[in-house]
Amino acid sequence: MGENRDLADLRRRLAEIADIESAEAVLGWDQLVMMPRPGAATRAKQLSTLRSIAHARFIDPEIGRLLDALEPYAESLPYDSDDASLIRVTRRDWDKATRVPTELSAAMARHNSEATEAWVTARANDDYASFRPWLERTLELRARYAECFEPGDDPYDVHLDQFEPELKTAEVRRVFDRIRPVLQELTSEAARDDVEPFETAFYPEDRQRELSVELMRAFGADDAFRLDPTVHPFCTSFSTQDVRLTTRYAENDLHGTSIFSTMHEAGHGLYERGVSPALERTPLAHGCSMALHESQSRLWENVIGRSPAFWRWFYPRMQSAFPEALDGVPGDRFYRTVNGVRRSLVRVDADEVTYGLHIILRFELEQRLLSGELPTADLPDAWGERFEELIGTPVPNDRLGCLQDVHWGGGSFGYFPTYQLGNVISAQIWARLLQDVPDAEEQIERGAFEAIHTWLRDHLYVLGRKFTPTETLERVVGGPIDPEPYLAYLRAKVATLRAP
Amino acid sequence: MGENRDLADLRRRLAEIADIESAEAVLGWDQLVMMPRPGAATRAKQLSTLRSIAHARFIDPEIGRLLDALEPYAESLPYDSDDASLIRVTRRDWDKATRVPTELSAAMARHNSEATEAWVTARANDDYASFRPWLERTLELRARYAECFEPGDDPYDVHLDQFEPELKTAEVRRVFDRIRPVLQELTSEAARDDVEPFETAFYPEDRQRELSVELMRAFGADDAFRLDPTVHPFCTSFSTQDVRLTTRYAENDLHGTSIFSTMHEAGHGLYERGVSPALERTPLAHGCSMALHESQSRLWENVIGRSPAFWRWFYPRMQSAFPEALDGVPGDRFYRTVNGVRRSLVRVDADEVTYGLHIILRFELEQRLLSGELPTADLPDAWGERFEELIGTPVPNDRLGCLQDVHWGGGSFGYFPTYQLGNVISAQIWARLLQDVPDAEEQIERGAFEAIHTWLRDHLYVLGRKFTPTETLERVVGGPIDPEPYLAYLRAKVATLRAP
Repeated sequence: MGENRDLADLRRRLAEIADIESAEAVLGWDQLVMMPRPGAATRAKQLSTLRSIAHARFIDPEIGRLLDALEPYAESLPYDSDDASLIRVTRRDWDKATRVPTELSAAMARHNSEATEAWVTARANDDYASFRPWLERTLELRARYAECFEPGDDPYDVHLDQFEPELKTAEVRRVFDRIRPVLQELTSEAARDDVEPFETAFYPEDRQRELSVELMRAFGADDAFRLDPTVHPFCTSFSTQDVRLTTRYAENDLHGTSIFSTMHEAGHGLYERGVSPALERTPLAHGCSMALHESQSRLWENVIGRSPAFWRWFYPRMQSAFPEALDGVPGDRFYRTVNGVRRSLVRVDADEVTYGLHIILRFELEQRLLSGELPTADLPDAWGERFEELIGTPVPNDRLGCLQDVHWGGGSFGYFPTYQLGNVISAQIWARLLQDVPDAEEQIERGAFEAIHTWLRDHLYVLGRKFTPTETLERVVGGPIDPEPYLAYLRAKVATLRAP
Repeated sequence: MGENRDLADLRRRLAEIADIESAEAVLGWDQLVMMPRPGAATRAKQLSTLRSIAHARFIDPEIGRLLDALEPYAESLPYDSDDASLIRVTRRDWDKATRVPTELSAAMARHNSEATEAWVTARANDDYASFRPWLERTLELRARYAECFEPGDDPYDVHLDQFEPELKTAEVRRVFDRIRPVLQELTSEAARDDVEPFETAFYPEDRQRELSVELMRAFGADDAFRLDPTVHPFCTSFSTQDVRLTTRYAENDLHGTSIFSTMHEAGHGLYERGVSPALERTPLAHGCSMALHESQSRLWENVIGRSPAFWRWFYPRMQSAFPEALDGVPGDRFYRTVNGVRRSLVRVDADEVTYGLHIILRFELEQRLLSGELPTADLPDAWGERFEELIGTPVPNDRLGCLQDVHWGGGSFGYFPTYQLGNVISAQIWARLLQDVPDAEEQIERGAFEAIHTWLRDHLYVLGRKFTPTETLERVVGGPIDPEPYLAYLRAKVATLRAP
């Protein structure tokens, strides 16, 4: 019965690591939402100390020994049992973490933090040249990181694997190759440049807040949730019973009101909240991967939150909350505006149709940067050329071009594709959900989200990180990533946008 | 030059421990101010993990070895240098921490947490009998704790020492014996039972908040401070540059408005904020002791915040913030009310005159409980008898008697006297400050607090925990605890309360 003792020992160690990581999450949330600015310098040191303690405890060889000893026990269990999954996923995480020397991890953490600061300054000054040496060093560190692993089928696999464990670049390419021409075709068909007066009208913060809280509660965010203002909205959780959503309250930009970011973050939050309580304080107690997480934020924000049914329910509330802005604006005009397709320069401002093209651009360029095929000196030009080919509009400067996103500044290569995979998967999961909840649209139109939330929780959220993204998707929809439901969804959306 | 390496090693270890302790403080603040209720169970585990990591790292024998090796270096330095103080204070803390077996520390932490829950229930139900077994066990654990140390001059010394390092029970007794009869005499002279209508008028929360922020800024709380609402106000800090005040907003009780609790917590906060930045991330980067901390909360709340000069400045603002409550109420009537002496049953509601008697009662009873002279079964009767002797009013039940405070529930024996020592010391420091800032009262009357704040910072706050409470007081006022300035202060206060 040594496995009982070993399993208890492993669980105890992992629970303590989960506690430290939760403490990091609390300090991170506090820093972005609550902390007085002068606290930043000491907070960075506190976070760095917690990170190095958690890391050191995880790569402890004793964890490797326990995992070895527990291998036969795991194999004796059903594949999807909590214990087998814990041992299997921890083994994968541990093998990955122990392959990277602590010295390299520390160098990357320090560099990414400093490079992010350099990026902030470079973007503010539209000064790519000042950022280029930092990007060079990031690419060197990425190469050293990649050398820690066996070469995959594709040199990009190792970077993607950080965010989508075991997903292959070839699969992403298959999906993106299929959708790219359709997105370009739909963009040409639907793009409009007009601005409605109510887009820039005044939306008072306090009423945004009331509507946002009403929405998150309607979606199923219970008393384990908080909603607070911040600069760049995000979601974090400190346990399945303590979920923090954040939002922002632009008062003169309909698209920047808290309504959309709250629906987005609520999707992330409902996923974290719905993980099985049996997985609490283990490495499995979070959403499965970035793409699956994003599939849920997009499902709640876009598939539900920008649907005709949703606005038939919610527009009257919106109108009575913001009469100065929306009196006399018909619902269908409002609907077409919140779904309007535009050749935006900026990813985070992009609509559902062009969004994927922004990602495909980055996916292509970051592979070329990593392979050395694209020298960093040529990035701005390459960005501009490819952007114009894909989206059809010229890029006036680097601030609105290759400097717009924090990701490369922070060393996150391999992250971008997960956003678009999330979009693709959201439509796939929604199509599957409609088989079981055929009247979902009618329910949305009544403001009833419980059946939808319950289905998602029972089919996806509850699984946490027990399975790989591919295994998880297989369990939820019965197959691999399939772009067809997404393309059908987008075509149907564009059809609703034609002038009446 | 081994000492350089040893000192750097010691400082690195202590900085990491300080980081973990700051993380504990962030999680603690979040729990009381921000956390959704369902997060409580996991939060307790997160805090317990951080506590045991910090504890294990501190009692590491390697720290003892470094301290031994650094002893000659410390002796070669001026006593008040930062390095000598760091080595000296850490030695004292380490010796104390390593004398208590980890098993006993853990047992106390677990028991105190559970006993606090039992106390909450017992108080709610006015059911002392249900709490008594928990108190018995607390006393057993206190006895085991005391056995870890050399016997002091007085068996109570070891308990007091947790909160006032190296202060002796005999000294507390000397001070309390001197003040007790005067407090009783002043209570007899000044106690009134009338309630003014404006005491229970309506004070809207938003206006309390505006005044409280104005006050804390006027006192010198800069952009490193936050003020948030909570149930039981407290102050905490995560570095000298990140200080969190909390307050509460009773809307139908003048004494429970945020005005007084904000001034109180601001005093604690200014102390933490004023510690020398050179002590950041060391065990010295906090206030010196509970009594010295309390001396500052009381100085700002009472000596300043209940003074005639203060209300000459602030009453017009108060009146215009709360016209419904205070229109037509003359300033002197208001002043007499916020300083009114009452035979209150509850310590936290007590005025400046009777407060000390509440503490003396607890100081006496907890010594008798610890020595076994007072069986726990007899506590309620002993409380009632002694309360009536000291304060002159009968105690109707245990909820308003021996169950009113959390301290014994949480195992904090030795804590109570520090509150009253804080009162005594606040008057002593104020008297000394007046020698250097003779027009302090005129400044207060103009709402000018900078000279006062600067004096306190430069003479006291900056020192942090470099010296013992006795040494610190010696540096600030030039001598030991002296009750005379406090008695003179109280006599003067009572004189101002006589009807005109």
